[in-house]
Amino acid sequence: MNRLDDIGEDGLVDLFRAWLKPLASSRELLGDDCAVVEFSEPEFDGLLTSDALVEGIHFTEETPPERVGRKAVSRILSDIAAMGGEPQYILLNIGAPGSLVLNDLETLMRSARDRAAEFGAVVAGGDLTRMDRLEIHGFCLGRVPTGRALLRSGAGVGEGLYVTGCLGGSLKGRHLDFIPRIREAIWLREKVAPTAMMDLSDGLAADLPRLAAESKVGGQVYLADLPVSQDVPNGDPTRVLMDGEDYELLFTVPLNKEGDWELSFQKEFGIAISQIGVVLPAERGLMVWTGEGVAQNWPDGGYKHF
Amino acid sequence: MNRLDDIGEDGLVDLFRAWLKPLASSRELLGDDCAVVEFSEPEFDGLLTSDALVEGIHFTEETPPERVGRKAVSRILSDIAAMGGEPQYILLNIGAPGSLVLNDLETLMRSARDRAAEFGAVVAGGDLTRMDRLEIHGFCLGRVPTGRALLRSGAGVGEGLYVTGCLGGSLKGRHLDFIPRIREAIWLREKVAPTAMMDLSDGLAADLPRLAAESKVGGQVYLADLPVSQDVPNGDPTRVLMDGEDYELLFTVPLNKEGDWELSFQKEFGIAISQIGVVLPAERGLMVWTGEGVAQNWPDGGYKHF
Repeated sequence: MNRLDDIGEDGLVDLFRAWLKPLASSRELLGDDCAVVEFSEPEFDGLLTSDALVEGIHFTEETPPERVGRKAVSRILSDIAAMGGEPQYILLNIGAPGSLVLNDLETLMRSARDRAAEFGAVVAGGDLTRMDRLEIHGFCLGRVPTGRALLRSGAGVGEGLYVTGCLGGSLKGRHLDFIPRIREAIWLREKVAPTAMMDLSDGLAADLPRLAAESKVGGQVYLADLPVSQDVPNGDPTRVLMDGEDYELLFTVPLNKEGDWELSFQKEFGIAISQIGVVLPAERGLMVWTGEGVAQNWPDGGYKHF
Repeated sequence: MNRLDDIGEDGLVDLFRAWLKPLASSRELLGDDCAVVEFSEPEFDGLLTSDALVEGIHFTEETPPERVGRKAVSRILSDIAAMGGEPQYILLNIGAPGSLVLNDLETLMRSARDRAAEFGAVVAGGDLTRMDRLEIHGFCLGRVPTGRALLRSGAGVGEGLYVTGCLGGSLKGRHLDFIPRIREAIWLREKVAPTAMMDLSDGLAADLPRLAAESKVGGQVYLADLPVSQDVPNGDPTRVLMDGEDYELLFTVPLNKEGDWELSFQKEFGIAISQIGVVLPAERGLMVWTGEGVAQNWPDGGYKHF
């Protein structure tokens, strides 16, 4: 008898796909950062995403409520960013013990609301349930011009692999205060039209294989080209592969793309953009180049939910 | 220092309203069964709702997974029904222990999918998180013709108070298998245009005061006219006031409404429709008539989440 513990998170996605079939009217559903759904309005597709933030997993009892509320909203906004979309409405289902101080709940909700507002979204409601510990289940409705959602499945062989910002060491504190890349993702969709995109939530080691699987490609990553965050001790680039919760964008663009879009991006947003590797045929698998001309097998790492 | 335990659920709604202001572009948000939001499409308003189903609160370890999945979806569909809306997309955030048997998870997901499909909705995705016990956080996007959402706030003095179906004793089993009143609610919106509507989830004793507060009215309920479910021991009508999880519709209609819409409704759906009281001015408060010509104060009962 198989149990959840016996199967990896990525195996579960395939099971869920099978269980939930048929998925009639939706364009893209499981296996991406958001569900992309048809609106009756022709101009936009809807984006739907949900996410859980749980005390003891994603934050601790000591995390200030302001940062808890901010992170809850930022994580779902990051899923909308991963599709190149624009967030509109957020619901927050809160589970909390009866001993929770009301002022803390207020601080949490206000910071959630403010973070949403920074990106033009509204916390439109939610629900409160008595639980043993604090949990926030966030839902977001967003939109993207019809047919323009940036899926994980469009990467082509020979294209470049890119990331925004710097990676690694997020658990030092960045994971609570990061800025979801909504504006950057919309800019990229409009100006560069990446062939595939996702947000990095579980670390490159776990996330790149997901993009590769959806696109049915392989790839190689150059360890020396990874943009290492100053939060990483000794600037160790292997940490960049394994650390989670970066919430930066991972995307693919043809290498012969016209114009110096990388420079324009950096001028516009003041954050780095780095080519970290290339897309290869699926049969090549995923590899890491260590910088001494040696390819290593892809590391088994990153955050696993199950 | 106030804690959640120190404040009632209904007090929390007012706090949440204050904390989440300003709520710019939304028509109606907290204090109703769904948030009603503007779509960029002019023909429809969006409906957003979320709900938690937690082991040990809403079902037990012994509840078959088929009924858990069905209830999770039915509860959010009931919120869409409460607005006279049509459900479209559902996301399910599942928290589960690693020991959960995969076959049970499959049964749960398939029954959730099937219940959604009965009402034209699609389970479009979700999320899985490791938790100590099984929890399902559901989110639904629906729609309703622009400006036609049936809010809790429109009841007028002198109108009749109505409920669909029979009430009470739901915990005997009906709470797991009830049919969300989507079709009935759409019919009512189109043919009868109730002035206010909600679904009964916490029991009349708790729910009617919410509708009355949003509409700024009072009312009286005739104990003898309450439609008592056969699940209620000895047909005791006071149980109808106190028992939760009926998921029937509570709504108000002017008493001089033309046509025998009650008869048409019963013919169409084969379930009862009952006038259980009348709407009175706010200063009259809420009362129960016991049938001996005696008015009693409104009972303090129904399910309280906090």
